Amino acid sequence: MIKVGIVGATGYTGVELLRLLAGHPQAQVTVITSRSEKGLPVADLYPNLRGVIDLAFSAPDVDQLSECDVVFFATPHGVAQSMVAEILQRGVKVIDLSADFRIRDADLWESWYGQPHTARDLIPQAVYGLPEVNREAIKDATLIACPGCYPTSVQLGFLPLIEAGSIDLSDLIANSASGVSGAGRQASVSNLHAETSDSFKAYAASGHRHHPEIVQGLSDMASGSPVNLTFVPHLLPINRGIHSTLYANLTKDVDVQALFEQRYKDEPFVDVLPAGSHPETRSVRGSNVCRIGVCRPGGGNKVVVLVVEDNLTKGASGQGIQCLNIIFGLPENSGLTAPALLP
Amino acid sequence: MIKVGIVGATGYTGVELLRLLAGHPQAQVTVITSRSEKGLPVADLYPNLRGVIDLAFSAPDVDQLSECDVVFFATPHGVAQSMVAEILQRGVKVIDLSADFRIRDADLWESWYGQPHTARDLIPQAVYGLPEVNREAIKDATLIACPGCYPTSVQLGFLPLIEAGSIDLSDLIANSASGVSGAGRQASVSNLHAETSDSFKAYAASGHRHHPEIVQGLSDMASGSPVNLTFVPHLLPINRGIHSTLYANLTKDVDVQALFEQRYKDEPFVDVLPAGSHPETRSVRGSNVCRIGVCRPGGGNKVVVLVVEDNLTKGASGQGIQCLNIIFGLPENSGLTAPALLP
Amino acid sequence: MIKVGIVGATGYTGVELLRLLAGHPQAQVTVITSRSEKGLPVADLYPNLRGVIDLAFSAPDVDQLSECDVVFFATPHGVAQSMVAEILQRGVKVIDLSADFRIRDADLWESWYGQPHTARDLIPQAVYGLPEVNREAIKDATLIACPGCYPTSVQLGFLPLIEAGSIDLSDLIANSASGVSGAGRQASVSNLHAETSDSFKAYAASGHRHHPEIVQGLSDMASGSPVNLTFVPHLLPINRGIHSTLYANLTKDVDVQALFEQRYKDEPFVDVLPAGSHPETRSVRGSNVCRIGVCRPGGGNKVVVLVVEDNLTKGASGQGIQCLNIIFGLPENSGLTAPALLP
Amino acid sequence: MIKVGIVGATGYTGVELLRLLAGHPQAQVTVITSRSEKGLPVADLYPNLRGVIDLAFSAPDVDQLSECDVVFFATPHGVAQSMVAEILQRGVKVIDLSADFRIRDADLWESWYGQPHTARDLIPQAVYGLPEVNREAIKDATLIACPGCYPTSVQLGFLPLIEAGSIDLSDLIANSASGVSGAGRQASVSNLHAETSDSFKAYAASGHRHHPEIVQGLSDMASGSPVNLTFVPHLLPINRGIHSTLYANLTKDVDVQALFEQRYKDEPFVDVLPAGSHPETRSVRGSNVCRIGVCRPGGGNKVVVLVVEDNLTKGASGQGIQCLNIIFGLPENSGLTAPALLP
Repeated sequence: MIKVGIVGATGYTGVELLRLLAGHPQAQVTVITSRSEKGLPVADLYPNLRGVIDLAFSAPDVDQLSECDVVFFATPHGVAQSMVAEILQRGVKVIDLSADFRIRDADLWESWYGQPHTARDLIPQAVYGLPEVNREAIKDATLIACPGCYPTSVQLGFLPLIEAGSIDLSDLIANSASGVSGAGRQASVSNLHAETSDSFKAYAASGHRHHPEIVQGLSDMASGSPVNLTFVPHLLPINRGIHSTLYANLTKDVDVQALFEQRYKDEPFVDVLPAGSHPETRSVRGSNVCRIGVCRPGGGNKVVVLVVEDNLTKGASGQGIQCLNIIFGLPENSGLTAPALLP
Repeated sequence: MIKVGIVGATGYTGVELLRLLAGHPQAQVTVITSRSEKGLPVADLYPNLRGVIDLAFSAPDVDQLSECDVVFFATPHGVAQSMVAEILQRGVKVIDLSADFRIRDADLWESWYGQPHTARDLIPQAVYGLPEVNREAIKDATLIACPGCYPTSVQLGFLPLIEAGSIDLSDLIANSASGVSGAGRQASVSNLHAETSDSFKAYAASGHRHHPEIVQGLSDMASGSPVNLTFVPHLLPINRGIHSTLYANLTKDVDVQALFEQRYKDEPFVDVLPAGSHPETRSVRGSNVCRIGVCRPGGGNKVVVLVVEDNLTKGASGQGIQCLNIIFGLPENSGLTAPALLP
Repeated sequence: MIKVGIVGATGYTGVELLRLLAGHPQAQVTVITSRSEKGLPVADLYPNLRGVIDLAFSAPDVDQLSECDVVFFATPHGVAQSMVAEILQRGVKVIDLSADFRIRDADLWESWYGQPHTARDLIPQAVYGLPEVNREAIKDATLIACPGCYPTSVQLGFLPLIEAGSIDLSDLIANSASGVSGAGRQASVSNLHAETSDSFKAYAASGHRHHPEIVQGLSDMASGSPVNLTFVPHLLPINRGIHSTLYANLTKDVDVQALFEQRYKDEPFVDVLPAGSHPETRSVRGSNVCRIGVCRPGGGNKVVVLVVEDNLTKGASGQGIQCLNIIFGLPENSGLTAPALLP
Repeated sequence: MIKVGIVGATGYTGVELLRLLAGHPQAQVTVITSRSEKGLPVADLYPNLRGVIDLAFSAPDVDQLSECDVVFFATPHGVAQSMVAEILQRGVKVIDLSADFRIRDADLWESWYGQPHTARDLIPQAVYGLPEVNREAIKDATLIACPGCYPTSVQLGFLPLIEAGSIDLSDLIANSASGVSGAGRQASVSNLHAETSDSFKAYAASGHRHHPEIVQGLSDMASGSPVNLTFVPHLLPINRGIHSTLYANLTKDVDVQALFEQRYKDEPFVDVLPAGSHPETRSVRGSNVCRIGVCRPGGGNKVVVLVVEDNLTKGASGQGIQCLNIIFGLPENSGLTAPALLP
């Protein structure tokens, strides 16, 4: 069994790791840390895990974490960068679900996250954990930077079009919407039920931290060509789920349905729906699958891509486990086979 | 008191008319028809109206309706066109909340609605009931075609930009989302709570009936210039509310905030938010106000307009009452002054 | 116009007062205080009030408040008791929506609220603001203690039965459920959307602060006879609304439907539904009406009463305005006539 | 592998069976019938099953079903009774999720379900599929009548108290609330999202079909003593989940916490929470676990039991699979180990 440690497991990506790993046939969680909840049994915080996880939270301790084969960081940005070096030195793999190592340009990172990056030397070593793009590099990685939730959906939606050189990179639009779990489990007025339910709004329309990450990924797909992206996130009154509606202008007349089906035919977690379909977020609730529909309204040169994922699963913890499976040579879907919960 | 009749008041736009007219100081509902619910007291179907409306549904009857000063049609498309001629002949004004008279090109109407139009001769006489565009014509109208819910939000969002000649009309995008009341009060599996709640999806991405109506309106604003619009509607797990996120490319460097504030400064029901704001659908719940935010992300040439309205109020019944007030020379906000219900 | 001050208007009962008073024909809000939000325009915090309320929050100031005719406290418990004496001395009426003056036994109050009561001498002067029970006393009151949200629903549900001496007071059960706005607008993890939505639970089953208030009120109805009540509150994933399901054993064979209809026939805000009806919380959303259904399942001696109210309206701010109307000799429904928002 | 057939798999209990059996290590679905959807791939109706279930619906055919080892009925009442005899004759086990064989008194069944029972002779052979009560009988059963969703929660909540002879059977109260999936996947106005969301109500307060089933079960626990139960169901605006709040009067001074813990210590799917806990429906979302909290408010003689289950899992399909495991001698939790989805 692969021994797994989780740093910062009190948040929603943490509990999602625990839920998924509880059913993983070849991995076992052995350490769960939380500075604030030290000593508390995990199941006292998350009653769904009663009878499933017997561990208690412990204070983060590098020695203890180093007895694991792999350590996940399910922490706010800034934490992983302060601890990863020591853990890597002990020969332990790290899968970071936070934003710390996603952006290769440290100055750019600092400008968006408003704080110094304290582990700049490790950035080059980090592998961006999007298996559909980076599977080979992930196999040999020691440090995985798991993609953000929005960036996963937007990149998987544009990938076939960009790789095929089919769209105008100077005018891409990602109109995305996320469930409230994306805002994390922090006390705040703006995420109270009475503030968010029965309502809908955009936010950060002028600029969101995931924008530079998405642009970096899209540009990589285009061999470094510049990409101009308008990205507008929205807040959905649902718990889980991201829906991205993508718009681009085709530069050649291409069968978009065939293009997507061909690109993803061997991908275990990308499901291209039949022509004319509209994916629903609930169809991936709790599952690592990303479902995609694509169309050209009126047969014109505008291509519209509809992408759904669970922000906590394919958008975070599930994708991290997918990377774990790749790193350790396991079947890529180990622990990730349960279908979505519907209704 | 202006005597008001309502045909087809069992649906959500019908009950919204009743709720709003209950507080109207100069209008009174005197006839409510429903073929299926004939004889049933309205308050038995809508318990919120107990003690407020004492009327019962009656079978539609032109003689009875002709005793009214104005008749609303809150019916599915196809009904108004079969009854309007007789009512107009009696000198009664008609405000049609359905789609029957919104599109001037009857052939186009028939192709989208899949049935013959049986009152083609009346189409030229219909005035499109969007006061922000058509106030003068509405004053003298005998037959009002109230705009659809999506079209209201999209047109009000593009209006200042198009009138100012500031955007490229060949590439407009409207990414819209509607609460479930937009689907009406018909028994269906797809609108069950267990099918729509805690989920989000696009629908009709390849073509929606509101597309030709929006294009007609936008083109009118541009003095008939052709308009190329991509319109993708989505279904929100909320009861009321439409949110439209609009994208266009600026053709000149314009202060979009000032442009919107200037255009709408005298409009009683369009509220341009301060720069940097994101309107929430709940801020207009049950109100006739349309709230708008506008920005240029990164200061580039892409303009993003965020528009919210209540689909049953400014998107239907409230707008109908606004037209009624204009027609009868009343203060335009009569019966429409209550602020939105929040939380 | 009656000049109204509101202390602590940033919370949900505060904004509900503002929403309702905006439509009140004879009252006008002139002062709104909030220590934390001093200087902020109210409409910046509550966008539904843009164009409706032009005031900004000011720091609480007795001199300023004393220029009002009446001051509402929409504050957490403990605040009103520290300010009320000074305000009353200036001859200003006070309507307290908080718990400070609801319980006549100050020791009991202190044991439930865990702090000393600092205005014990004012308690005898406070009139419990439940018009259906206390209308005459309210007319002459200077200090109104508005009932809690749960207590309003439970007392109105048991009132006809207790007054008629029809039930066994030694075994009353109130199984109540409240929307999340009842928890207020404070940052907390437990009221996040991702914690409360799509879920349901009881809380405080072993004892809730509203228990002594309810028991006091029920005992008053029974001329001081002791009452044994089991009260279990639950948290509903809705914004507004309380539903109380009450159970009691009849001590005589009584026509419960007739009893309720008779007791409430002249009450403007209590609506007894026809036999066999089940009131829905949405039927009172945003309205001051309390709707009641009553039945004897299987015709036995168990009576079941179903009560709905909006916790922010009849359960708080609407009831406060109803008291204001009574105190100032206005029509009791002034500002409270709008029907509930449905759907 | 045990071959499983499912009759009527288009509804929510059907899709829940498919979801759970997809992860069952020793059972495989081989036939899925639906008269109305004959020929349609299951995954076209339920997109969460794309890539998981390759079967298409077929018309119900006894020959085909008889090749299975066990057949589930996930049908409305009335269907199973018309087909079960033939299937049993072929030596195939039947697990009926519908109400057809739950009530031993056929006359009583007919009076509540309003139609003749056409398989009265099979009723005595049916075993009530509540493992916590009937495990031994289930082992040898050929026909299982799975309990209703409400009855499971109410019976498990009262079981320890009744078996210990601790409560007064003449006055039991079950105040229950169910998510909307309990109403099934039929087109109806009353279960539209716009009718049920953001609202709460009781229904069938005067009598519900699950009443006689619950009374039969409770009386069995009491060795046939008569039981007087008041049962009031409510409709929750959530997808899945039942919460029952039970009230009874203790006839002896008993440590209720110890009583519940002792009774359920060996039960794999009943989790008694620590004293003072309040179970949440989300803690069992998609799981077969029933969580229970118990208390005596104020230390009095009233005992309050709080029970949560997922109505589609422990309340239907999960319980059916638990019975399948018992019948075929498999570990009782086969296919039922995944923790609840939270958030």
